[in-house]
Amino acid sequence: MIPRYSRPEMTAIWSPETKFRIWFEIEAHALDAMAEIGVVPKEAAVTVWEKGGAATFDIDRIDEIERTTKHDVIAFLTHLAEIVGEDARFVHQGMTSSDVLDTCFNVQLVRAADLLIADVDALLAALKRRAFEHKDTVTIGRSHGIHAEPVTFGVKLAQAYAEFDRCRARLVAARAEVATCAISGAVGSFANIDPRVEEHVAEKLGLVPEPVSTQVIPRDRHAMYFATLGVVASSIERLATEIRHLQRTEVLEAEEYFSPGQKGSSAMPHKRNPVLTENLTGLARLVRGMALPAMENVALWHERDISHSSVERMIGPDATVTLDFALVRLTGVIDKLLVYPQNMKKNLDRLGGLVHSQRVLLALTQKGVSREDAYRLVQRNAMRVWEQGADFLAELKGDPDVTAALTDAELEEKFDLGYHTKHVDTIFRRVFGTA
Amino acid sequence: MIPRYSRPEMTAIWSPETKFRIWFEIEAHALDAMAEIGVVPKEAAVTVWEKGGAATFDIDRIDEIERTTKHDVIAFLTHLAEIVGEDARFVHQGMTSSDVLDTCFNVQLVRAADLLIADVDALLAALKRRAFEHKDTVTIGRSHGIHAEPVTFGVKLAQAYAEFDRCRARLVAARAEVATCAISGAVGSFANIDPRVEEHVAEKLGLVPEPVSTQVIPRDRHAMYFATLGVVASSIERLATEIRHLQRTEVLEAEEYFSPGQKGSSAMPHKRNPVLTENLTGLARLVRGMALPAMENVALWHERDISHSSVERMIGPDATVTLDFALVRLTGVIDKLLVYPQNMKKNLDRLGGLVHSQRVLLALTQKGVSREDAYRLVQRNAMRVWEQGADFLAELKGDPDVTAALTDAELEEKFDLGYHTKHVDTIFRRVFGTA
Amino acid sequence: MIPRYSRPEMTAIWSPETKFRIWFEIEAHALDAMAEIGVVPKEAAVTVWEKGGAATFDIDRIDEIERTTKHDVIAFLTHLAEIVGEDARFVHQGMTSSDVLDTCFNVQLVRAADLLIADVDALLAALKRRAFEHKDTVTIGRSHGIHAEPVTFGVKLAQAYAEFDRCRARLVAARAEVATCAISGAVGSFANIDPRVEEHVAEKLGLVPEPVSTQVIPRDRHAMYFATLGVVASSIERLATEIRHLQRTEVLEAEEYFSPGQKGSSAMPHKRNPVLTENLTGLARLVRGMALPAMENVALWHERDISHSSVERMIGPDATVTLDFALVRLTGVIDKLLVYPQNMKKNLDRLGGLVHSQRVLLALTQKGVSREDAYRLVQRNAMRVWEQGADFLAELKGDPDVTAALTDAELEEKFDLGYHTKHVDTIFRRVFGTA
Amino acid sequence: MIPRYSRPEMTAIWSPETKFRIWFEIEAHALDAMAEIGVVPKEAAVTVWEKGGAATFDIDRIDEIERTTKHDVIAFLTHLAEIVGEDARFVHQGMTSSDVLDTCFNVQLVRAADLLIADVDALLAALKRRAFEHKDTVTIGRSHGIHAEPVTFGVKLAQAYAEFDRCRARLVAARAEVATCAISGAVGSFANIDPRVEEHVAEKLGLVPEPVSTQVIPRDRHAMYFATLGVVASSIERLATEIRHLQRTEVLEAEEYFSPGQKGSSAMPHKRNPVLTENLTGLARLVRGMALPAMENVALWHERDISHSSVERMIGPDATVTLDFALVRLTGVIDKLLVYPQNMKKNLDRLGGLVHSQRVLLALTQKGVSREDAYRLVQRNAMRVWEQGADFLAELKGDPDVTAALTDAELEEKFDLGYHTKHVDTIFRRVFGTA
Repeated sequence: MIPRYSRPEMTAIWSPETKFRIWFEIEAHALDAMAEIGVVPKEAAVTVWEKGGAATFDIDRIDEIERTTKHDVIAFLTHLAEIVGEDARFVHQGMTSSDVLDTCFNVQLVRAADLLIADVDALLAALKRRAFEHKDTVTIGRSHGIHAEPVTFGVKLAQAYAEFDRCRARLVAARAEVATCAISGAVGSFANIDPRVEEHVAEKLGLVPEPVSTQVIPRDRHAMYFATLGVVASSIERLATEIRHLQRTEVLEAEEYFSPGQKGSSAMPHKRNPVLTENLTGLARLVRGMALPAMENVALWHERDISHSSVERMIGPDATVTLDFALVRLTGVIDKLLVYPQNMKKNLDRLGGLVHSQRVLLALTQKGVSREDAYRLVQRNAMRVWEQGADFLAELKGDPDVTAALTDAELEEKFDLGYHTKHVDTIFRRVFGTA
Repeated sequence: MIPRYSRPEMTAIWSPETKFRIWFEIEAHALDAMAEIGVVPKEAAVTVWEKGGAATFDIDRIDEIERTTKHDVIAFLTHLAEIVGEDARFVHQGMTSSDVLDTCFNVQLVRAADLLIADVDALLAALKRRAFEHKDTVTIGRSHGIHAEPVTFGVKLAQAYAEFDRCRARLVAARAEVATCAISGAVGSFANIDPRVEEHVAEKLGLVPEPVSTQVIPRDRHAMYFATLGVVASSIERLATEIRHLQRTEVLEAEEYFSPGQKGSSAMPHKRNPVLTENLTGLARLVRGMALPAMENVALWHERDISHSSVERMIGPDATVTLDFALVRLTGVIDKLLVYPQNMKKNLDRLGGLVHSQRVLLALTQKGVSREDAYRLVQRNAMRVWEQGADFLAELKGDPDVTAALTDAELEEKFDLGYHTKHVDTIFRRVFGTA
Repeated sequence: MIPRYSRPEMTAIWSPETKFRIWFEIEAHALDAMAEIGVVPKEAAVTVWEKGGAATFDIDRIDEIERTTKHDVIAFLTHLAEIVGEDARFVHQGMTSSDVLDTCFNVQLVRAADLLIADVDALLAALKRRAFEHKDTVTIGRSHGIHAEPVTFGVKLAQAYAEFDRCRARLVAARAEVATCAISGAVGSFANIDPRVEEHVAEKLGLVPEPVSTQVIPRDRHAMYFATLGVVASSIERLATEIRHLQRTEVLEAEEYFSPGQKGSSAMPHKRNPVLTENLTGLARLVRGMALPAMENVALWHERDISHSSVERMIGPDATVTLDFALVRLTGVIDKLLVYPQNMKKNLDRLGGLVHSQRVLLALTQKGVSREDAYRLVQRNAMRVWEQGADFLAELKGDPDVTAALTDAELEEKFDLGYHTKHVDTIFRRVFGTA
Repeated sequence: MIPRYSRPEMTAIWSPETKFRIWFEIEAHALDAMAEIGVVPKEAAVTVWEKGGAATFDIDRIDEIERTTKHDVIAFLTHLAEIVGEDARFVHQGMTSSDVLDTCFNVQLVRAADLLIADVDALLAALKRRAFEHKDTVTIGRSHGIHAEPVTFGVKLAQAYAEFDRCRARLVAARAEVATCAISGAVGSFANIDPRVEEHVAEKLGLVPEPVSTQVIPRDRHAMYFATLGVVASSIERLATEIRHLQRTEVLEAEEYFSPGQKGSSAMPHKRNPVLTENLTGLARLVRGMALPAMENVALWHERDISHSSVERMIGPDATVTLDFALVRLTGVIDKLLVYPQNMKKNLDRLGGLVHSQRVLLALTQKGVSREDAYRLVQRNAMRVWEQGADFLAELKGDPDVTAALTDAELEEKFDLGYHTKHVDTIFRRVFGTA
């Protein structure tokens, strides 16, 4: 988590202040439930809410205590006792540190998921706007980096929209994975804590009780969460890579917005580089790499060990902060993307009409030429265009084996661009519900 | 995919025979739809179904053709033409290889998911049976590998049940991710193929049409699929690790079934090793490692490149076959697991009663001792037990600071095992809906 | 390990036949040493070499025995006894299965490394040949996919040569990592086997004795081996990606060789796709992904567990076979690469001279213009060229702030291509020792 | 990089202060070389060293400038110009940002490697000391977590020593991988910078010139560096896992030092948990996970793209800081490890003598019993001990098939522990050069 790739909205979730506030709320809600059940005095709960609720926790003081106890939750509870006074002794009764730590971690992950979902929503909005703007902007579709057949730039963006719409659904599912609460005491047996306490805390925090926590919330949930972030990051990489390709000097069909005063290169003043999308490519690698340690965290020993903790202290903030930053950056790129329809047209014409080869192939077979022969006929003309830069239509017209099957007019009809875009509306309706 | 870790049910999905059969069905269903629309003769579709449906595709012949064409789908279509005759020229019209390959791959992944879900169902059944069998078998719960407080062996298995129940839901979601069909032609524009063809094929194959395929089905779907397999594998590792721990010589609370005639070691005839669960641990590493290349596959160039293909040729079979084998093996381990309640009892008694330390701590605080003091009192007696093997209850009774707050009878009451298992029913109801 | 991406030279190393032959040699060499020391009769060793050396091991029979014993080495030894007769009882005395398995695995990995090193040598030869062929073929250097300044195509290949030369050194180091032998008996204590046996076997097999084997050879060695393969694979991906970029329709500076009869697309006959380098990109992902499980294999429990075994049964063959195939494929691509110097020239001229912007910048500062001002001056002219397609030299000549510092002749001199290639010889001498 | 898992020695390498100081030195050394060659005035170099060398760079000011220029090196150079004055215009001439950034990154990685190597040296010293201390402390060797045959605790530590000695060699190799310098200008062509400048800067910084830098130093070097850290981390995990196992309640052969005032659990005062080694297990996962993005960084586009940068900004500090912390923590654990030889003895006796089963097996075969029969005889007695807790020696003495071959005295001789430790000196001499 480095400032350069962080947004305050997300980093705030991971601040010590937020963490201790959530810890306090968990403890105080639990105390409420205990008071309700009758195992602690109701006044104690009131006092804790009043004094703790009003207090600002002193992070340095907590750190100081932790240096002696070597235990963060005990350090916090000690500090809380300094604030609350004698009633603090009722706090945390029958609970274990993991009840606080794991529930807090899940609260943070849920909040992070909410932010990520909102990020995706903003990205979807930008994609939709630009998709409709360029719904009919014809451009060449490329397979293997080689010109294939025409599509529209709007369809490219509709594809990205559909992909991030799936990512949204995945994030919603990932959020649900970790939206659980455990207040079950040592080894999760509820020996010293009534299950009703867990139910109360869960409800107050917008979570559901973990069916079987074994002191810890099982880490398959978190593995799924971070694996999902890795997939979302990979989708970011896909769109970023598309833009990097489009901005290549030889292609230049689209370009990241270049702000006045920006310098592309300290040495070469002419440069306008797709640095944002390159950056996104790297950030995707980072987020993806964090899925692995999260999966290795699942196999804790027996009821629990603490090996997951150091992993989560790092990837918890790092993966969410980085992905949040990346989504927002990508939204900005899409929002302000410079699009060059004329260059798209110019590139489209570059292959001398070869992009229409399939239509000619089909036309030949429809005239009764065998598929094998038709393929051979088209390919031999195509290869001349490819190698000598000839005009495909002219070559076809000059090939007697072709003209034996197709008239000039029939051939010309096969070179109509509109033919390729006639189903754009179909695709848009599928993706956006409307065209 | 190596025979040792493969089951025929899953390998069959990935055989060339299955693949070509699915290819044929895709082409033939597509032809039906084209005939229905009127772009090809209905008789052609009838002929293709009749001759192709009856034929056994000659894999060697297809390979032979591919050595010339260097293109697998063209090789298949050429072979199909050898079988079907002249009407074969209507097959594949307006389609591209990816329409066949990607739809087929998804059909295979869906079938694989169905098998994996059935595997998990069998595992769940075994876990449930053994969980109820040992619902009240008391055993020590361990955190950090250190005795903590008592649980029951049934609760351990209930935890595993809940975890694999989540895995089941994840597999169902992963299946839905890849249950899509693309018959959209070059760059996915439907220029030469009517979208109704795709709808028909999808319906016949139990899939839904891919909203925007760009010649390929987008690989974020597959990334999610393989990431999910990685998470399931990690849950397998967790349960396998638990059993490996329980079988340790010093623990020996449970043991993999050891068949007559089996040799644990060529050198040491006394050995009975948890080789199945160790094997599962390794298999989990393999499946997990395949999630990464699947995520790297997402960022294809423009409308598509073919870099994903070699990855999927390997991890498609390898991840599903390995996970299937692992799930079935784990089910067998659970089903036949030798459980030693007496050893559980013996181990439980090993710490001289220290496992009851929390109850004493809580009792002291309830008598008005501050939490800090109570902790100190309990810890100083506990450390003597830990270091000198003393009896915890006796130590407590001999500590005047303790007895100032708690009578001998009160102390003795804190050493009741039933106290720890009183919520087992609660947990079972949460997991199984019944206790 | 799938046939499509395998070469027989490497798969042979991993065949059952090879494995059992190595097992036999390990056992027989060990027997020689035992005979020499005097713990077994010399005649027994002679008999074993004679009968076992002449025999073809019956793999089906060994599999059959293993189905009973569930132990592969015992199955082999039983089969060996069937061949050798009574003297077989001296074989394997004091040894444990891992002595055979681990030493054999290392022999296989060493042989695989030798093949990979030979592959890299062939690749280096191809790269060197093509590098010298195109030492002076000027092409545009690109940063961020954007034209930067001129280089030569030979320098591009020299870079790849230097990179694979490093990969060669890494493979040599990786080979040394695993070139060890363990014949140390149960838990590696040499209790029942004299260390001189290990020394003898090591020497005969071209290995060195493992300093401390704990029944197994420590897996940090193998982790390093497979991590190295992952790095080599990543270098393959880099060169493959370069070629994919160069073959893009809009760039077309180089192209994979396209054989007669090859079909680029079943639907679009005009296509010539960089399918080999795309394939290499995918293969790189696979090999890279195998480094992780290899690293997870390191932390075996105590003296050993068997969790590494299933991992290695898969990645041992898969990683080496795939990398071998990839290196040979890449060598073929480089060897036959179609290079288009004229297209390189055409692309170079595309930016209207902008690639010379740095020289102008430096010239201005050398004339006393501050760096800040010079940058601004160059950038404002460059942006016009970028946006309006103007000629950079003409723009500069028309900018009075520029011409105040530089004459037309001075400006023109800055547009000389030779200026950029004057150190090609320096680079070649560094890489190849000669220019 | 979080404070909890960081040491100031390593974080200092990655501070902005250190970074800008290295940047300055690169620029100033380069200027010296340019002055020597005669392309800039010697006085300028003197001035830059004097003013820049004395200055403290104002990080806030540099950040402020970067917010406009969006380019960190230009921001630094602008700030340097504010300090140095007019002569600053000679700085960075003909260079590109990557010359500064990549060379600086390598300087940082080299310094980090030096620290890691020193860390390993300290760990080796601790391992050696404890290994000799416990050279003859007999303990049970375990395979599969099951008692196998005796070893000594010193041999366990000797194994770890040998493993970290290999890690040291790997770190030295990794250091050499990245100890290169690039001052080669845009696309690495040396068009505007004399190669002698690079040679001078390299020499001054203790690096060697990169043979072919293409504006960037090739990232296969860094991939190898981070992969190596991942392997070292995995070795840490192995030793940490060993200690976690030894500290298990049922085993308790060794224990992490437990400081006065430390609390093992907020709920269970009796707990002494192996939290440091559990923490190391998690840290290992983190470092390992960073190898993947580093490998993905290799395949930059053409001469360079900037996608590696965000990855390295994170994993550069994170991997080195985490590994440094882990190595130092592990050294502390080893140094202060509480070792319980009496518990080792007690555990060793637990299996009723079964650990001697192999010796009996061998003795039987040496008396002419076939290996198959001998195995069967030993196993049937061993299984009774295993299942009924009988005494192995007594069982054997009572088995007439056994006593037909071996006398009681011969059997008893096979139960001598010294037999298993007779080669400890051999192993120590191999590892430490001395016993």
